[in-house]
Amino acid sequence: MSTRLAILAGSGQLPREIAKAVEGALYVTFEGAGGDAPDGVEHLGARFEKLGALFAALRAGGVGQVVFAGAMTRPALDPSAFDETTLRVMPAIMQAMRKGDDALLRAVAAVFEAEGFAVLGAHELVPGLTLEHGTLVGKSPSAAEELDAAKAYAILAALGGQDVGQSCVVEGGLCLGIETLQGTDAMLGFVAATPAHLRAATGGVFVKLPKPGQDLRFDMPAVGPETLSAVAAAGLSGLVIGAGGVIVLEREEVFRLAESLGLFLTAR
Amino acid sequence: MSTRLAILAGSGQLPREIAKAVEGALYVTFEGAGGDAPDGVEHLGARFEKLGALFAALRAGGVGQVVFAGAMTRPALDPSAFDETTLRVMPAIMQAMRKGDDALLRAVAAVFEAEGFAVLGAHELVPGLTLEHGTLVGKSPSAAEELDAAKAYAILAALGGQDVGQSCVVEGGLCLGIETLQGTDAMLGFVAATPAHLRAATGGVFVKLPKPGQDLRFDMPAVGPETLSAVAAAGLSGLVIGAGGVIVLEREEVFRLAESLGLFLTAR
Repeated sequence: MSTRLAILAGSGQLPREIAKAVEGALYVTFEGAGGDAPDGVEHLGARFEKLGALFAALRAGGVGQVVFAGAMTRPALDPSAFDETTLRVMPAIMQAMRKGDDALLRAVAAVFEAEGFAVLGAHELVPGLTLEHGTLVGKSPSAAEELDAAKAYAILAALGGQDVGQSCVVEGGLCLGIETLQGTDAMLGFVAATPAHLRAATGGVFVKLPKPGQDLRFDMPAVGPETLSAVAAAGLSGLVIGAGGVIVLEREEVFRLAESLGLFLTAR
Repeated sequence: MSTRLAILAGSGQLPREIAKAVEGALYVTFEGAGGDAPDGVEHLGARFEKLGALFAALRAGGVGQVVFAGAMTRPALDPSAFDETTLRVMPAIMQAMRKGDDALLRAVAAVFEAEGFAVLGAHELVPGLTLEHGTLVGKSPSAAEELDAAKAYAILAALGGQDVGQSCVVEGGLCLGIETLQGTDAMLGFVAATPAHLRAATGGVFVKLPKPGQDLRFDMPAVGPETLSAVAAAGLSGLVIGAGGVIVLEREEVFRLAESLGLFLTAR
């Protein structure tokens, strides 16, 4: 049985970290989806219109396992270019697309599984990608910040069934932002632009968690150095992330930034 | 028994519409909270620091009923200026403040009720302030837009217990914005700034509802001409509001704008 790994890569740091951790992996990017391959890895350019060609190329390359990693934008598709495989799976994909990112990724993963590929999660391939329960970097959260974190948890839990909201910000008991399709950075930018008279004296808390029941094999939530900079720029006090369920990209730099920006970073 | 009405006014159009509808009402604004009185009404300037003085002035003016209307910003308070009444009620107010706007307003209303004033809702004073179930202005929503509206309803219902989110935007099945402390206009501005590649081909739907269990006597959700302009500027197709539960400010202008901007406006 083939066990070579293909990294189905979008943009960002995560697919590159997997490529570093898993020797001999095949790096696959999709036209119009935003990823580009780093130097020194075997690269395959694919098109969503030609999934049959992709599956044939993966098999020819000895690939038996795939991992989805990085952010993919949804490219405009050219239906006249669909091969037979794409034509066959597209109705289920289109239907899932209407139900949100999770549903879409589950549907795409199901297509790969039906073709005989095992779908793995990034955290199963790269050791130390998430934080253990109780990890604390930087200062300790205050009692008020603990209350804000608890409120943020409650909001994210309430939204869990709706396939929206992996992160939110609560400050002084009031919610300043809930992540939607535009992503974490856009939400933190929105919080940063909040008029000063609506801000509490104490800085608030950013919380990021997997959605309840989220399949961590793909679209696992992540934070990285940019997240910490954005949290600080939004005037917040710290970050709480789900233990074992949120990827920390460039871990050493993230820890260093938490200290130097005066933030706390903790995993629950 | 005194039945004269005092309008406890913040900024915006609503307190002015009440002043027009209820002859002889006393128009009360609070220092630093953002309201200003229109011409031709009796005006009383008050301070949150001097609630005892306010209650005495209301009684002296023959006031027996109050209505909260318009948006009040939370002013910085000067504790050294607190009179005995403010000192007595402040602990309960401070505690409620941490729980969000609804809790704060409920606590403030309870203070007025304990002083013997009846607290009314704007919709009880001004006829035609909300829309009846089934009202439709402008074009009819498409089947896809009905699906988007249903998803927005589900998101708002899920959030109902959290005192956040009176409105949200769903487009092509995906959530583009959830209202937080910054309010509806800020949320629609955020949606308008969404990168084009994340937008669906069809315009999405803006939904605004009272929170489940919300006391409609104060902080009733509202839409007005600016809301319709912001919905159009955000590239959306229309608005769905809660029947009988959302105030429509400047109703004729709102209806005219729905038609001229090519939006639908419907109440459920």
